[in-house]
This record gives sequence, structure tokens and C-alpha cells, in this order.
Amino acid sequence: MWNRNTDTFLSCVSDFDGAGIVLFGAPFDGTTSYRPGARFGPAAIRRESYGLESYSPHLDRDLSETSVFDGGDLELPFGSPERALAEIEARTELILSRGKLPFLLGGEHLVTLGAFRAAHKKYPDISIIHFDAHADLREEYLGERLSHATVMRRCHELAGDGRIFQFGIRSGEQGEFIWSAGRTELHRHNFNGLDASVRALAGRPVYLTVDLDVLDPSVFPGTGTPEPGGVSFEELRLAAAAVCSNCRVVACDVTELSPPWDHSGISVAAAVKIVREMLLSLATFNEEE
Amino acid sequence: MWNRNTDTFLSCVSDFDGAGIVLFGAPFDGTTSYRPGARFGPAAIRRESYGLESYSPHLDRDLSETSVFDGGDLELPFGSPERALAEIEARTELILSRGKLPFLLGGEHLVTLGAFRAAHKKYPDISIIHFDAHADLREEYLGERLSHATVMRRCHELAGDGRIFQFGIRSGEQGEFIWSAGRTELHRHNFNGLDASVRALAGRPVYLTVDLDVLDPSVFPGTGTPEPGGVSFEELRLAAAAVCSNCRVVACDVTELSPPWDHSGISVAAAVKIVREMLLSLATFNEEE
Amino acid sequence: MWNRNTDTFLSCVSDFDGAGIVLFGAPFDGTTSYRPGARFGPAAIRRESYGLESYSPHLDRDLSETSVFDGGDLELPFGSPERALAEIEARTELILSRGKLPFLLGGEHLVTLGAFRAAHKKYPDISIIHFDAHADLREEYLGERLSHATVMRRCHELAGDGRIFQFGIRSGEQGEFIWSAGRTELHRHNFNGLDASVRALAGRPVYLTVDLDVLDPSVFPGTGTPEPGGVSFEELRLAAAAVCSNCRVVACDVTELSPPWDHSGISVAAAVKIVREMLLSLATFNEEE
Amino acid sequence: MWNRNTDTFLSCVSDFDGAGIVLFGAPFDGTTSYRPGARFGPAAIRRESYGLESYSPHLDRDLSETSVFDGGDLELPFGSPERALAEIEARTELILSRGKLPFLLGGEHLVTLGAFRAAHKKYPDISIIHFDAHADLREEYLGERLSHATVMRRCHELAGDGRIFQFGIRSGEQGEFIWSAGRTELHRHNFNGLDASVRALAGRPVYLTVDLDVLDPSVFPGTGTPEPGGVSFEELRLAAAAVCSNCRVVACDVTELSPPWDHSGISVAAAVKIVREMLLSLATFNEEE
Amino acid sequence: MWNRNTDTFLSCVSDFDGAGIVLFGAPFDGTTSYRPGARFGPAAIRRESYGLESYSPHLDRDLSETSVFDGGDLELPFGSPERALAEIEARTELILSRGKLPFLLGGEHLVTLGAFRAAHKKYPDISIIHFDAHADLREEYLGERLSHATVMRRCHELAGDGRIFQFGIRSGEQGEFIWSAGRTELHRHNFNGLDASVRALAGRPVYLTVDLDVLDPSVFPGTGTPEPGGVSFEELRLAAAAVCSNCRVVACDVTELSPPWDHSGISVAAAVKIVREMLLSLATFNEEE
Amino acid sequence: MWNRNTDTFLSCVSDFDGAGIVLFGAPFDGTTSYRPGARFGPAAIRRESYGLESYSPHLDRDLSETSVFDGGDLELPFGSPERALAEIEARTELILSRGKLPFLLGGEHLVTLGAFRAAHKKYPDISIIHFDAHADLREEYLGERLSHATVMRRCHELAGDGRIFQFGIRSGEQGEFIWSAGRTELHRHNFNGLDASVRALAGRPVYLTVDLDVLDPSVFPGTGTPEPGGVSFEELRLAAAAVCSNCRVVACDVTELSPPWDHSGISVAAAVKIVREMLLSLATFNEEE
Repeated sequence: MWNRNTDTFLSCVSDFDGAGIVLFGAPFDGTTSYRPGARFGPAAIRRESYGLESYSPHLDRDLSETSVFDGGDLELPFGSPERALAEIEARTELILSRGKLPFLLGGEHLVTLGAFRAAHKKYPDISIIHFDAHADLREEYLGERLSHATVMRRCHELAGDGRIFQFGIRSGEQGEFIWSAGRTELHRHNFNGLDASVRALAGRPVYLTVDLDVLDPSVFPGTGTPEPGGVSFEELRLAAAAVCSNCRVVACDVTELSPPWDHSGISVAAAVKIVREMLLSLATFNEEE
Repeated sequence: MWNRNTDTFLSCVSDFDGAGIVLFGAPFDGTTSYRPGARFGPAAIRRESYGLESYSPHLDRDLSETSVFDGGDLELPFGSPERALAEIEARTELILSRGKLPFLLGGEHLVTLGAFRAAHKKYPDISIIHFDAHADLREEYLGERLSHATVMRRCHELAGDGRIFQFGIRSGEQGEFIWSAGRTELHRHNFNGLDASVRALAGRPVYLTVDLDVLDPSVFPGTGTPEPGGVSFEELRLAAAAVCSNCRVVACDVTELSPPWDHSGISVAAAVKIVREMLLSLATFNEEE
Repeated sequence: MWNRNTDTFLSCVSDFDGAGIVLFGAPFDGTTSYRPGARFGPAAIRRESYGLESYSPHLDRDLSETSVFDGGDLELPFGSPERALAEIEARTELILSRGKLPFLLGGEHLVTLGAFRAAHKKYPDISIIHFDAHADLREEYLGERLSHATVMRRCHELAGDGRIFQFGIRSGEQGEFIWSAGRTELHRHNFNGLDASVRALAGRPVYLTVDLDVLDPSVFPGTGTPEPGGVSFEELRLAAAAVCSNCRVVACDVTELSPPWDHSGISVAAAVKIVREMLLSLATFNEEE
Repeated sequence: MWNRNTDTFLSCVSDFDGAGIVLFGAPFDGTTSYRPGARFGPAAIRRESYGLESYSPHLDRDLSETSVFDGGDLELPFGSPERALAEIEARTELILSRGKLPFLLGGEHLVTLGAFRAAHKKYPDISIIHFDAHADLREEYLGERLSHATVMRRCHELAGDGRIFQFGIRSGEQGEFIWSAGRTELHRHNFNGLDASVRALAGRPVYLTVDLDVLDPSVFPGTGTPEPGGVSFEELRLAAAAVCSNCRVVACDVTELSPPWDHSGISVAAAVKIVREMLLSLATFNEEE
Repeated sequence: MWNRNTDTFLSCVSDFDGAGIVLFGAPFDGTTSYRPGARFGPAAIRRESYGLESYSPHLDRDLSETSVFDGGDLELPFGSPERALAEIEARTELILSRGKLPFLLGGEHLVTLGAFRAAHKKYPDISIIHFDAHADLREEYLGERLSHATVMRRCHELAGDGRIFQFGIRSGEQGEFIWSAGRTELHRHNFNGLDASVRALAGRPVYLTVDLDVLDPSVFPGTGTPEPGGVSFEELRLAAAAVCSNCRVVACDVTELSPPWDHSGISVAAAVKIVREMLLSLATFNEEE
Repeated sequence: MWNRNTDTFLSCVSDFDGAGIVLFGAPFDGTTSYRPGARFGPAAIRRESYGLESYSPHLDRDLSETSVFDGGDLELPFGSPERALAEIEARTELILSRGKLPFLLGGEHLVTLGAFRAAHKKYPDISIIHFDAHADLREEYLGERLSHATVMRRCHELAGDGRIFQFGIRSGEQGEFIWSAGRTELHRHNFNGLDASVRALAGRPVYLTVDLDVLDPSVFPGTGTPEPGGVSFEELRLAAAAVCSNCRVVACDVTELSPPWDHSGISVAAAVKIVREMLLSLATFNEEE
């Protein structure tokens, strides 16, 4: 389909046709308002993945047993969010059309909209599980409707009321919290209530979007808008595994790693490990189908 | 009174006369013995405040609804702690004389002494609530009586026994801990006992001083003397809100952010959010009076 | 005209009406393709200007003797280069309409186009003196016509052949060098030939644009696209002073400082000193008129 | 006239003959596969120890009351792990032969093997308590039998089954976890089960090895292989104190601080405090003998 | 021959069989005595090559016109210099056996020995042109005969007297300078004398080894042993081009980039540009044959 | 059994009585107005000296042949410049009284005053050769007479007119330049005129003070007040060697290294090499006496 990129995420050496999951990167941060750099996220995640084991003692599974194709990064223009989203949507659509699970690496959180458009086209009744520090529910931000701060509002325009389940939220404008009432299921600070949501969504198609700034800045300093008071790594790992293992996840993403802001490298290490755990959990689920 | 400085803390755009709270900075770190840089604290807090929302979902209030005047920074000499303290005291006295609440941004912790002198002059029965990793109770340090390591001892000379309530303390000389017995109420490691102190001080004037190194270094690496084993951001946020909402705080400060030691910027983000939460809690209290 | 921003460049405390030069910032880096961060340039230049003297021993003049108004930064959207350019153009036009010299602080180099559009409207026969490591003469870049890599090509569309004098150029596509023949006067590597250009332009309106990456990366690491083999600080200082003192500069800019890539702060120190020297030279010229 | 400058760990000013504990460094990281720099660990621990108090309020003891000799660092070749281990073993043997407790500062974790060889020679029935994120039980790594990733396997060859008690383990190959069954007592993630092990080992000789990457990367970013999801500082402090106070520790080490990866300095502060707490706990034990 | 690695140096997209030059990396720094990290050099050079143009205005040629195969990195063990050298030698030999030019990216300078062994086998009368701050002529270093500080001594054992031409040397033990007399042609500080050497070697096989620390630390801070007082980037560029264009270079290397020591990225930018210029000059030469 | 760990400058292992030169540090930066951290200078110079050779090919001499005692650092209070100066003066006096040459490592430039007071007491006709970017001739700075910005003015009060020879000066207030006329011999930008001064001072006692910010910030970013447009390393090395070899230097200092502002370590490498070259040149001179 496209040529294999041999600089892949750790142990993701399947080819496209044989893959159940397709990893690809969207190195875009064109609407980042505070600290840019998420464009370097996908490359950093691949590169630093070799500092981690391919085996997860948490799940007792190894990436070498899975069939993941790493398709490399899209080439995206800066300065034109709509064109970037169109390319992400097209790529996601292609992957879905082959019966594979698209796993998008951001980039800023706006990239989710491109992938979700494609997923929503295939699964019109799809729900979103959203981990984030920020509600991302603004109508517009700095005069723009397409922004990392509006992405869930745009997704809501497609998905409709009652389809978006938000966890970890601890920041936003007052208007976002008011607006969300009756429209999204917004859980503050942590993952309380996730189990109920997972049960409620049983068997229905789910898009999982992980904005890594849901983590506490001590764990994940390398991001565009660090928000104190977040969850621990173990809390996120368990929450992501719960969704990936128990929901019917048909597409997902991990966004907002901005490597230049963390010279220590712990942020990319956290991102890598979350991606590994999600891949292993998703692969498990797929096999069980 | 003095000219408005339009490079203010986020949304603190009141003028002096209309303000209930007056924010001002004391960029002094002349006695810092280990890692200097707290002089850059106030400017960094203002600058990075624009990375945060003005709205707090924790308190459901917005800075834009408050009346805070940001008076900018004092110009302080290095090499003369006594002169620096005199200028801080004079400025605090001016603010108090107009019936406003002074909110001081350090600088090293010694700056507290200047503000407390003024507060004690107006409220001779004032108590201190003190959040810190260090007891700061030495008689002298490196041969000097005026030092970040002696500041609470100097405050005690004014306030007397039973007036200082210390929380989070996990470092000091043996002599400080011995000396404190019967003189200050010293709580180790965390905020256990704070609720009782808050209740005991009901209605009485309180000076709240927050040395941000009470936070764990993972949350707040950018400080002069990081001390492992501290509190989480949420613990500090709740403790500060408890005091600001339930005590009669007549003056306060936030000190010891040293930006050069944290390139990731999470320390200043933590400082900004604590200042926002304190401002919103204090404004609430004032209105309720 | 607009309110005075008291967080100004060193000693630039004139008000708008009394000013001969108006400094303003365009914190935009929306088309930066490699290392973003130029959005933080104007604020860093102001902030760090206090580490320098206001007096230049090179010119034996002091900023306190000049009449410069620092108008602060424009609020620009990310994700829409055309809108950002429109705001820069409007602001420049306003300054020019009052008979003042606009001095723009970038931001990425694309911001020049906004200011040059306004200058060209007022002075249709205006020439450009351009200091840069890169030719910036592409027809488009990553599919976009508005980009830091196309900015001189867009300016040429307005100015026409023989109006753009480029110095220090040491990078570009082959096509840019070929295209430039007969259209721009392109000098490679350094400022050889500048004196002749300055003499040739005597008395005619000039726009001076300084992309600071013309400096060697050792002197100026904090930029989006460092290109080894550049000029020394003294070479740039003398070249900028030659233009500002001997040409009829009617508008100018200094661009491409990207502070996050240089923790040592020498890049911003170089930017600050160039701005000071240009301001002092321009003020000299204006008085001599 | 005046004495030469001695650079010791904080307050460890005993001479060799009078010392009960001998601190020494092994600045070796020759097999580090991911992020080198542990060679700078011992010097950083000494240097930054002066940022901490010599008094521990946790233990109510002061280093000035102990008798610790800081013997400085070994000079070790890079490129020859076997020779480095031989030098560490010889030095440890010398210290043990004088009836003193060797306290080794790494360096990478492989250095443990040198010290353990000496300890095992003197105490053939010795057990190991091992705090680490990684199991370190591989037969070989990148083709080498001597590696930071194989060190516990090599120790097992000496100690035999049932002698190694591992805590905090959260990473490794699948084969390591399988191999450990029946051979080592491997506890995952945290220190659950430590109390039982301490009781079981009562009165028997113990070697305590602390790979500081058992800490969460937020607390300890400065290490060769950061592994998200670790223990807090307080958890490690209490666990180390439990072993040092209640077991018959005859030798110990603290390894894997890699200062270049943490500019904020919180990692070295954590290492310093753990060393202080261990020294104070061990000295306590020795006196009680 | 081996599979194409699609994460290549900029525009080096030839396949092995069609290539005239074969680029490959040796990520080894196992004998680095001071500041490790050269192991990350080859990956950084590839990754950051996309920040540079493929076209050189200096040479008026473009990498897209050349036939360079980027073979990726060898997998080398740490802790065994001899085994690492054997793998480098084998790979170099393979490339030479196919009539192609091996271009090795270090890694520390010891890697040169592996490649030179292979080149010397094929060309027994080969000479070395050596750019470096350090003489690297020790008999042994820290007890080891294989070290970055002994590499030219080891090469001399193969090449013999009068075959090694050293430039830029400004550091070493006294013994190295004495020993070199009559054995190597050692030029201090800069490239004076290079033209004569190039002429003297006309038509004879040459191995060019560039230790990038020959550059001044201001230009190239990211290296293991920075030595003040080095050459400028332009001096190195011209010297390397002179050798590559005018000598019969049959193999070459560029070593000692250590990315972790330079967060600004100017060191890797310098390395990338030197590699580009050498590739373009060598390709020129080959065609002219 | 084994000797205590001594931490000296590279190869400076003489004892006090046998030494001709005594190195000592004054880790003071209490009046630094811009970027503090010079307090860490002396320790960094010692520590990093081991990255350099003890042999200088420039001078063909080796530190191991000299007799230098490294006396470690003074313990100085922050917050009291006068007390710090008194301690520096006393220590310098002691060294001079034993007929040895004091070599002071700063710290900020104010420390020079302490050492110069002692030298002036012994040699009332002493002259000063001063390398610096800044004139340091203010009457007071931020209200203080004792400051890094006033130190040469204070020295002038002791030495009188015509005794201070300044080189490299490129920054100051206008008043400083006016005041210097007829009082100091102030040379701008570089070392032009140094040879004449050296000849003029032949045989007369000289105090050499090197503020390392005379270097260009590209070479020496790690300093409190970087000033673009400075000298190269080789220019400083040759100038310092000229003074140390040809003048009768009776005391000297090297100041203003501020390590926290340069993570790359090139600043400390430059400082170390200048100290080495000065030590070797001074030792030469002493022997030739």
C-alpha cells in the first residue's frame, strides 16, 4: 500500500497488509497557542521506544507477538489546519477501509478531529472516550474554529449529545463547563466513573483520544499547556488499559507530547509506555473477537 | 497612587484605588545560600500566567470578576538585606493603610519578614500560617541574622509564642526542632492538623506565607533548596484554599520560585495556579465580609 | 493613540505622539517548518533588554536621549498567516501615517511581508536591504505561498526587479539562486558589497529586514533554522549601523529569535544589542534630517 | 599552613581507621546501553550533599554524630568491565577485612557485582535485598554477560536460589520473569512484602542494593533507563530505612544516578537524601550491636 | 545486499547496488573518558539533516543528484571495543569490495580504527589526513590500548611513518608531540600546510578522518572533550572540501558528535553540513575519475 | 589506610609550604544584578579541570612540573559584601606574606577588590591590568558602592590615576567612559595597545584581573552579563600569556564564570584552559627570576 518505514516504533515490524493495527504520526502543531513543539512528538516516540522493553509485565504480552504496522508520519503543511485535517482524515479512512485499527500519534490535539471524521463516517453511532486536563469545548479560540482548544466541540458537532465521555478535566473557561451539561459526560480531575462508562458502552464502537497532559506535569512536563494537579502514570495506564481491553475501540490517538520542553526525556518515556500498553491491550481485544 | 503596570498577572487589571487585593513582587534573593534565581520569580509568574485559564473550575470563579491591582515589582538592592526589607515593609504598610490586602510574590523567603513587620504593626495579635519544607527557625545562618533560613525566627521575635503554625516541615537543624517546642506549632511532612488550626484561628487576623518548596521536587523543581518527600500539588491547593477561604487572611505571600533551575516550566505553572487559587479564595472571603 | 505598555524595551519610554520611532512585536511563527518558538521573541527581547546598558560606546549615544515608543505586541492568531499579515500591515500603516518609523520585532521572517506591504503602499519606489542566511525566494514551500521561506519572493512581487539587496546568503534551493539573477542583488556569505549598495540607494526609501540567522549559530543558536558558517556579531553590528546611519530607512524589522532553543541567553542578548544599535543609529539619522 | 581541600560527602569527615562505614565511588557506566552518564554520579552526590541538612528529622540523628570515612572514587577504565569489577571487589574486600561496612556509590548497576563478590566471599550465606525498576536477570545483553541488565543473574550464580529479594520490579523481558520463579523472590511495582522479607532475614547477613530508578521518573529523571510508574520518594525512604534499621546489612550500594539527564538537580537531591538516611540508619544499627 | 533503511540522511535515497558512496553509522562510545554520548551521533545527524537544504550554494550541487546509500547503523556492543571494531571493519570491507566509498559516522574517534583496518587491507600504501583538536597518539590510555586517545597510534602501527597528516592539533600529552616527530606530520591549531599535503598526496589513496572537535567549542559544543581555541566552521568546510575534491579519498569518517551536551542543536547542524559538503565533494571527484 | 579524597585543580598537588603559587576560590556573587551563579565558579573550574590535559603545547610545559597549592574555597557569607571582601583580603595577605603568588578564582568581579587591597598594601605602587567587557567604573550601582559594576572605581581609589590599564571594554554608562579619561588607560573592544602597556610596566608589580566576559558570548555563554562582540579564546589566551610571561605579576584573578547558564560546559572549559595557561606562564616567570 505504502512503503514500509523501517524506523518504526519498537517491534512494530508487521507489513501493512498483515497488520491488525496501523500506527501513523501527524506531526502538526499549527494552532498551539502557548508552547509549540508537538510536531516533534511522533518522531520522538519512535526513537525513544527503543529505551523500553517490548514486553509488558502488566499485561504479560510482548509487542513482538502483535501485528502492528508503523506507517511513519504524514507530511503536513503548517499554516493550514484544514488541509492538515483533510490528510489525516484520508489516511484514517484508508486504514479503516482495510479493516484495520488506526492508531494516530500527535501532534497537537486538533489532529484528533481528522481521524474522528473518518471514524464517524464509518461508525455513525461512535462514542468518544476523552482523557485530558482541558475540556476543549470552546466554540472558537483566538478567532479560529479549528484549534486544540475547540477540538471536542467540533467532534460534538459530528457525534451529538451524550456521545463524549471526558475524564481528568481540570481546566477550561466557565462557559465550557456550563455548555457541557447535558451534552458531554464531563468527569473532573480523575478517572472516577470510567468503569461505569466502559460498561455502558459495551459492544459499541469507541474512539479513544488521550491528550497526555491529563498526566500531572511532574510526570509529563513536555507538553504545550502543562496543568498542575493531574493524574499519576499508573492511573492513566490502568484507565487506558481498561478502555482498550473492555471497549470496542475502533480508532484511537495519543497526542500533545512536546519533546523540546523536557530535556530529561521522562515525558517521551511516559508516552512510549502508554502507546505500548494500549497496543498490547488493543491487540488482545482484537484477537478475542 | 502609582502608575499602573500593564504587564500584569493574568486578568488582574483593576486600578489601585478600586482594588481589594494588591499584588506586588519582591525580586530579591540576596541571602540564598544554595541555588540563586528567586529574583526572577515575580516576572516569571506574571509572564507565564497567560498559559493558564483565568477561570478556576475548583472554585467556579474567574479572576475577571475580582478586583486585583498588580503593582509590579519593587526595585531592590542586592547586597543589603536590611534595605530590601525596609522597602518591602513600606510598600506593605501603604497597601494596608488603604484597607487593601497585600499579596507579595517573592523572591526568597526572607522577603516575608518585610511584609510581616508591616502586618504586625497594624495587627499586633496576628498569627502566621506557614507552609514550607524547612523550619526556618535558626538564630543565624552563615553568620547572618537576616536569611531565608532564619526568617521564621525573626517573625517569632515579633509575634511571640503560639502564633506561628508550621506545616509540611521536613528539614532543619536539630536545634530548630528542639527550639520550636512550646514556641511554634510545628507539623511535619504534610497538612495534617491544618483544619484544627484554621478553626482555632477563626476570626483572628492571619498572615499566610507559602514557601513553594513545601511541594515535592517532582512537582516543583525550580527552587533554591529542593527537599525530597514533599506534598502534591492538590494537597497544597486544598490547604491554601482552606486557609484563604476560612481564615481572616490580612496579608500573604508566595515565595521561592527560582525559574532558572527548571527549563520545563512546570514550577512556574504550579506557582501561577496557586496564586490564582489564592486570589480567587481571598476575593471570595472579602466579599463575604 | 493606544495605551502605553510600561513593560517596554530598555529606556523606550516615550509616548506614542512624541515618538519618532515606534517599536512593536509580531509574536507569530505559524509557518515555521523546523524549530518553532519565534513567537516568544518580542517578549524575550523586551525582558532581557534590562541586562544591557542603554548607552552605546560604539555610537556614543544613549537610548534615554531618543524618543522611541514601545507599543507592545500584536495579538495574532495561529493557523491563519493571512490574517496575521493583515494585522501587521494595518498597524504599520497607522505608524507610517503619523510620520513615524515602524520598527517590527518578529516572530518568524514572514512577518516582514505585512510591514513591507504598508511601507510599499506609502513608498512605491522603496528598496529592501535584506540580511539573512537564507535566500527566502521560493515560489512556495510545503504547498504554501505564505511562508518564512517565500517571504522575499512575495516582497519581490511588490517591489519588482532590482529593488532587493540580499547579504549573508548561504542557503537555499538551487532554483532560488538561479531565479535571483537579474531580479535581486544577492551577495553570498557576508556583507561584501554593502557599501556600494548603501551609496547606490542614497536618499531613496529603504526597508531594512534583519533575519538574525545571518549570524553564525555559535553567536545566535536560538533560531528556527541555524545555518553554520555565518557572520560575527561585530560584522552584523557594523553592517546594520552602516545602513541605519547612511540610508533613508523608513521602516525596519528584526526577526527569527527563537528563545526556547538557547537556554544560555546569548541569542537574546545579541538580538537586544542589535535592536539598541539600530534604534540609536536610526534616531541619529532622523535628527539629521 | 592550611589543610588541603577535601571533598567528602556532607559531614563524613572521619578518617579510615576510626570509621564504621566507608563510602566510596565507582564512576563506571561502560555497559550502559541507553543513556550514559552514571559515571558522574558519585561526584555529583558528594558535591550536592551540601545543599541538604546533615540532620534527619525522620530519624532524629545527625551525620556529624556518625563515623563515616569518604574514601573518594576509584579510578576505573572504560572499555573493560571485568577490570573495573576487579578493582571494586578488591576495594570492598579491604574495607570488609577491617571490619567496616562498605557503602558503594555507582555508577551503573553492574558495579554491584564487584562489591557483592567481596561480600559473598566473607559471608557465603549472604542474601540480597534489591530495589529496582528492572529485574536485571538476563543471561546476557547485547552479547555480553557482564552488563547492567544481567547483574542480578550474575549475583544469583554466587548466591543461589532463594537468596535474592527483589522489590519495585516493573520491567524486563518475559524470560526474566519466568526464570525468576523459584529462584528469586520477585515483588512487582512496590515494596509490598518487604516487611515479611526483613523479618525472615533477621540476624542474617544482607547486601542491600538500591537502583535508584525504582523511583518514579518524576522524582528521579536523571537516570539511564527511566521507567514510568515507580515508587514515591517517601516509599523508598521508608523501605530503605526499614532494611537498614532492621536487617544485618554488611554491605550496600546506591546506583544509577546519571546527572547529565536532569538539569534541575532533583535527582541528585533525592540520591543525596537516600544516602544520608541509609548512613544514619546503618550507624544506628551498628551502635546497637 | 542489505535492506534499505528509509530513515536516511537527507536525500540519500540510492539503493546499495546503485550507490557510489555508502554511509553507515557506528554508535559506539565505550571508551569515552570524559563526556559520553557520541553513541547518539549517527541518529542525530540523520534526523536533523532535514533541517538543512540538500543543495549547496558553495559547490552548486545537490544531494539529489548523487548516488549515496545510507545503510543505517551497526548494532555494536558496549563494553567490548575489540568486537565493535571487528564489526566496523567487516562492514567497511564489504563496501570496499563492491567498489564503493565507505563513509562512516561515529561514534567516538576509536571507530576510525575499524574502518582504517579495512581500507589499509585494500590499499596498503594508504595515507591518513586527520583533522582533530587532539593528537590521539598515546600508547595507551587509562590502561587500555584501544581508546579514542590512542586511535592514531594504532593507525600508525598499520600505516607506518610519514603516512599520517594531522591538522588542527592543540592538545595532548608532551610525549605525544615528542613521539610524533619523524612519524606523523603534525600541524598545530589550524589547516596551515594542508594545501602542500594535498598536493603531495596527489593520486595516492587517502583516508580522511574528521574528529569534529577540531572546531572551536563555540561552534561545536556537543562533543566529548571540548578544547577551546579551535577552527571556525568555514575553515573546516574549506579544508574538508579541499581534501575531498583534490585527493583520491577511498574512505572517510566524521566522528565525535555527542548530542546530549548541546541542547541548542548547533553542533548537529554543523555535523550535518560538513557531511553534506563532503558527500557532494566526493561525488564530484568520483564522477571525474 | 588510604588518603582522604582531595579535590584540587588538575595536577596542583603541591602543599602550601612548597608552593610558589596558591590558588583559592571566592564563591561569592552577592551583588550580581542580572544572572547569579558565579558562586559555583571555583568548584566547577576544579571539577572540570580533569577534562583538560595538564600539558600545554602552546607553552611546552606541564602543570605537573609546577608547584601550585590549591587551597580550596573560602566560606563566605551572602548578604554582606564587606565581610566577604575582608575574608578575601585576609587570605590574600597571608599568601603574600609567605612570598607566594595568590591566584584567586571568582565569584563575581567584586572579589577582586579584596585581593587587590592586600596586594596594594604590600606593593603600594602596584598597577592593574584589567581584561573585561565592562568598564566597572561606576561610583555606585543600585545604591551600593560595593558591586561588580563599581569594582574598578574602588580599586582606583587605592591605586590612583594612571595605574589601571583596561582592555576589551565594550560596555558601560556614558559617565564611566568620560570619567576614565586621564584616570585609567581604557582600550576598547580588544587587546590593541597591550604590548605597549606590558613594556611600560616592565619590572613593576602588576595585578592581573581577568573578567572572563571579555570573551565573546559564543565562546563563554556562562556568565552573569554576556555582552556580544567580544574577543576570541585565542586572543585572550595570547593576551594573558603576554602579561603573565612578561610582567612582574604579583597577584591575579579569574572571575565571572557562572556555570548554571551554560549546560554545554564550554564556558568552564575555557575558564579551565585560561587558568592552566596563566599558571604555566606565571610559573615560568617565577623561575626565570
